[in-house]
Amino acid sequence: MSARTWSVYLAGEIHSDWRERIEAGVGEAGLPAAFSAPITDHAASDDAGVGTLGEEGEPFWRDHMGAGVNAIRTQTLIRDADLLVVRFGDKYRQWNAAFDAGFAAALGKPYITLHDAEFDHALKEVDRAAQGTARTPEQVVDVLRYVIEGRLP
Amino acid sequence: MSARTWSVYLAGEIHSDWRERIEAGVGEAGLPAAFSAPITDHAASDDAGVGTLGEEGEPFWRDHMGAGVNAIRTQTLIRDADLLVVRFGDKYRQWNAAFDAGFAAALGKPYITLHDAEFDHALKEVDRAAQGTARTPEQVVDVLRYVIEGRLP
Amino acid sequence: MSARTWSVYLAGEIHSDWRERIEAGVGEAGLPAAFSAPITDHAASDDAGVGTLGEEGEPFWRDHMGAGVNAIRTQTLIRDADLLVVRFGDKYRQWNAAFDAGFAAALGKPYITLHDAEFDHALKEVDRAAQGTARTPEQVVDVLRYVIEGRLP
Amino acid sequence: MSARTWSVYLAGEIHSDWRERIEAGVGEAGLPAAFSAPITDHAASDDAGVGTLGEEGEPFWRDHMGAGVNAIRTQTLIRDADLLVVRFGDKYRQWNAAFDAGFAAALGKPYITLHDAEFDHALKEVDRAAQGTARTPEQVVDVLRYVIEGRLP
Amino acid sequence: MSARTWSVYLAGEIHSDWRERIEAGVGEAGLPAAFSAPITDHAASDDAGVGTLGEEGEPFWRDHMGAGVNAIRTQTLIRDADLLVVRFGDKYRQWNAAFDAGFAAALGKPYITLHDAEFDHALKEVDRAAQGTARTPEQVVDVLRYVIEGRLP
Amino acid sequence: MSARTWSVYLAGEIHSDWRERIEAGVGEAGLPAAFSAPITDHAASDDAGVGTLGEEGEPFWRDHMGAGVNAIRTQTLIRDADLLVVRFGDKYRQWNAAFDAGFAAALGKPYITLHDAEFDHALKEVDRAAQGTARTPEQVVDVLRYVIEGRLP
Amino acid sequence: MSARTWSVYLAGEIHSDWRERIEAGVGEAGLPAAFSAPITDHAASDDAGVGTLGEEGEPFWRDHMGAGVNAIRTQTLIRDADLLVVRFGDKYRQWNAAFDAGFAAALGKPYITLHDAEFDHALKEVDRAAQGTARTPEQVVDVLRYVIEGRLP
Amino acid sequence: MSARTWSVYLAGEIHSDWRERIEAGVGEAGLPAAFSAPITDHAASDDAGVGTLGEEGEPFWRDHMGAGVNAIRTQTLIRDADLLVVRFGDKYRQWNAAFDAGFAAALGKPYITLHDAEFDHALKEVDRAAQGTARTPEQVVDVLRYVIEGRLP
Repeated sequence: MSARTWSVYLAGEIHSDWRERIEAGVGEAGLPAAFSAPITDHAASDDAGVGTLGEEGEPFWRDHMGAGVNAIRTQTLIRDADLLVVRFGDKYRQWNAAFDAGFAAALGKPYITLHDAEFDHALKEVDRAAQGTARTPEQVVDVLRYVIEGRLP
Repeated sequence: MSARTWSVYLAGEIHSDWRERIEAGVGEAGLPAAFSAPITDHAASDDAGVGTLGEEGEPFWRDHMGAGVNAIRTQTLIRDADLLVVRFGDKYRQWNAAFDAGFAAALGKPYITLHDAEFDHALKEVDRAAQGTARTPEQVVDVLRYVIEGRLP
Repeated sequence: MSARTWSVYLAGEIHSDWRERIEAGVGEAGLPAAFSAPITDHAASDDAGVGTLGEEGEPFWRDHMGAGVNAIRTQTLIRDADLLVVRFGDKYRQWNAAFDAGFAAALGKPYITLHDAEFDHALKEVDRAAQGTARTPEQVVDVLRYVIEGRLP
Repeated sequence: MSARTWSVYLAGEIHSDWRERIEAGVGEAGLPAAFSAPITDHAASDDAGVGTLGEEGEPFWRDHMGAGVNAIRTQTLIRDADLLVVRFGDKYRQWNAAFDAGFAAALGKPYITLHDAEFDHALKEVDRAAQGTARTPEQVVDVLRYVIEGRLP
Repeated sequence: MSARTWSVYLAGEIHSDWRERIEAGVGEAGLPAAFSAPITDHAASDDAGVGTLGEEGEPFWRDHMGAGVNAIRTQTLIRDADLLVVRFGDKYRQWNAAFDAGFAAALGKPYITLHDAEFDHALKEVDRAAQGTARTPEQVVDVLRYVIEGRLP
Repeated sequence: MSARTWSVYLAGEIHSDWRERIEAGVGEAGLPAAFSAPITDHAASDDAGVGTLGEEGEPFWRDHMGAGVNAIRTQTLIRDADLLVVRFGDKYRQWNAAFDAGFAAALGKPYITLHDAEFDHALKEVDRAAQGTARTPEQVVDVLRYVIEGRLP
Repeated sequence: MSARTWSVYLAGEIHSDWRERIEAGVGEAGLPAAFSAPITDHAASDDAGVGTLGEEGEPFWRDHMGAGVNAIRTQTLIRDADLLVVRFGDKYRQWNAAFDAGFAAALGKPYITLHDAEFDHALKEVDRAAQGTARTPEQVVDVLRYVIEGRLP
Repeated sequence: MSARTWSVYLAGEIHSDWRERIEAGVGEAGLPAAFSAPITDHAASDDAGVGTLGEEGEPFWRDHMGAGVNAIRTQTLIRDADLLVVRFGDKYRQWNAAFDAGFAAALGKPYITLHDAEFDHALKEVDRAAQGTARTPEQVVDVLRYVIEGRLP
């Protein structure tokens, strides 16, 4: 069997260390996976438009400009990915995570959700279109180990 | 010019009368538009799985079954629509509305968001991929009147 | 809301009356649904090739010719359908039903499986890509009633 | 002419050594082909869900979880492949093999079936959508040698 | 079952009465089928460009202009069709018929070829991608009767 | 042959009567064609955003809002059309006409350009992807008459 | 600018040295291009089915089997190519070349035709959908040199 | 995170040094980006057809031949790109830049426009479908630095 590198996009929450935990676990497991993600520096992400394309005083349009620049990155990387992990944390509304999940679903691209049970009911549509729901980053590592190499923990 | 009926899917919040206000306004304006929507009876929607495919005690799987049945309706109607209106209200997290927006975006299908300014920052990615953001159902009617017949209020 | 006619393709087993039961139930419920199906006359279906395109003595090629003609019907109707019901009975191997399910899945077209619990393990991949699994034709009618009109039994 | 590596997905039966025989034959022939496959460790495959995403007592949902995780692998590798070989053996019902064939067919992806003549009639739809039907792994090697290098045995 | 009208495009040879024979046979059989075709008036077809878009003396560009105008018709009708019949006669090279077959094949659209056995070897690639090969217009009618209504002659 | 209504989108210049001349000519010829177009009331088109979605003082964002609303109409109608006519007049830069042509080309949708010879060199890429270039609305009518009914003037 | 390798599929006639002349010219010009083609050993190509998948006495089915195996190669390489050259020689009917052109056209894949002027009228539809028509392999090399490096002879 | 090379197509104006400035800025920033572009040698571009495929006296057809050859390059590189920058300068009408933008938009491919404010109104449709509008090549570099590495200037 060939040694394929799996491309995994880590969507959603940017306020906890879940991405690092997945990447560390995958590194320890020695899996051939390459990760990508949105820009996770919150301040930079908010200024992605006005920090590159010029000043704008109106908050709505500042956000609009920033979201346009960020979408170049996120939609390109999602289209490139074999698989997404979509994380919902307990802060903020994280509508962009759900948007990314819907975007992936329409492209026929598989994704795993990662969230606590308290959000199960609110996320039922998003979870239904997923290939599985994980509770911890370690479970995501377990999924990747199995998907890539067929080994269970 | 031909009299085309525009197909409009009304996604998102099911706890206020925004759909009725849009349909009433479009009716008064005499516009050739046909509306569709998810099932908006909250109790029925939650029981869509166990009420049709048989009992299930575990809440996660109850939701899973229900979301599967609901998705038959929602994804079919979204694929059929010319245009979506995606409403975010002030209650609940409404991740399914953002999911629908992402789904539409990936299909290249236009949508209008409908929400208060307080959510602008949180919805910036969803708004960016939209063709416009309305604050009231009446503004949505104005958009439809213009899109369909070219008349401004 | 507009009165949309839902197009439902009934795939799979041709040796029991499940199609008639679904159509009867939908008729009683007064639902706007139009059904399509493969040719269910087993003898005619087996002769679809040699009965139209000329004689062929070799069984493999007889089947090949027949399957070609049948595929004109089945693949066209599947592409046209909003939704499929895929039935697995207790006789024969019914690989064509699983083929139709895979075909629908790749097109992003929703389907419901209909089979007894004894096949659950063998059909797990086919069920996983479905929007739900029914045990009886009456449950399929219940799903259609909900999907089309939002009413539970 | 350029030295292209052909990507071949080996779908279906996991209880005989047909994959090894194809890979060995291709190795002896020195053909530039890379193989991929579902996880062929039956026990691991059955536990793909509960072994990664957490316990589940109900058999239907255990299978559902496992099939979701397995589908990440199988559908990704099928989309990546240039060609599939779909094997039907004499044990089990192997509906997943037929599902994979239908999935490939809808994507316009070529495949070869591999099975004994006793299944010809039952597999006629699956064979018809294939580019050919082989009886032995060695014939598959012959097809690959020809397709890749134009040499007949 | 619903009364669906099947849309059939009749591609290829324009020098014999095969289209009329198919349409007559389908009319006698009372089948719900609607036919479309390229413009079959050879002289008009050759002048489709210069007769509409203005004079052009150079034969290559005259043909180029005409083929552009004809392609508006043919490619639109092929995209609309459920099924094509592609006829190869004994005169001219009829490369456009083979072009239409390739165009349909890439779109995943089914077609039947119609030609004498003397062309079997030369047309083997075109026939292989077809759902069947007929020798007479009457056989095409038989195929349509079966596909639409399941009746054999 | 069936009486198909052809759907024609008239893109581009909104300052001369070319649309009326095409529609009049098609009416006189009795052709089954239905026309659609962008909103051609220049003032309304410029206010499409602020006239529906609320005030905006900055000209760039006024245009941005207006273009978003207009695109709901134009991109939907272009996707619906069988054929486009793309008109370039002698005033303004008409980049939106070229944008529509590129949009149609990427969708595989045929179009005819309509412009004077003075623009031939500047429009060579746009003309190359077209099925033909007309100089007058009457020539467009001639093309439609031929495409729909096979009759030359 | 990056050094991109262009992938070029050489379709059509297999009885003259046009492929070698194009590859030699491209080699002399030092262009980064990789070529692919159908199997050009006529005898092997005719036996592609029976030489790999087992004996078959009936000529029609021999061809059918062979064409199936050949299509694995040709359709995969066409989908992979950036550009096709489609050659029509003066022998045989070469319907497969026209089929490949139609297949490429429907995929939105550019191609150049290569043939003598005597076939211009018969090939007008095939030429119209091409990006250009060359008369000699050397002209094809000139096109590739320009397309890849912007240099004219 | 993996070191992905971003592929950027630089469309539009060929009479100023904006491409060089973007490439220089990206080089200084050390970003992993590979650029592609149309042939920017104006004289060669105009002769792309007659310089490769043979003489042609009529200006319209000279342009037609040239545009066909150029489109092989431009449409292939646009399909390959992750992102486009579309530049509108103050000379010529640059309809091909707008055509490329529309082509990219229909493919769901992100682009940034680059032009002075004086064209804002005329380019409003093209800007609306873009992910952002830059005024200087340096702003484009800033966007790329952010998109690729998340750093703001």
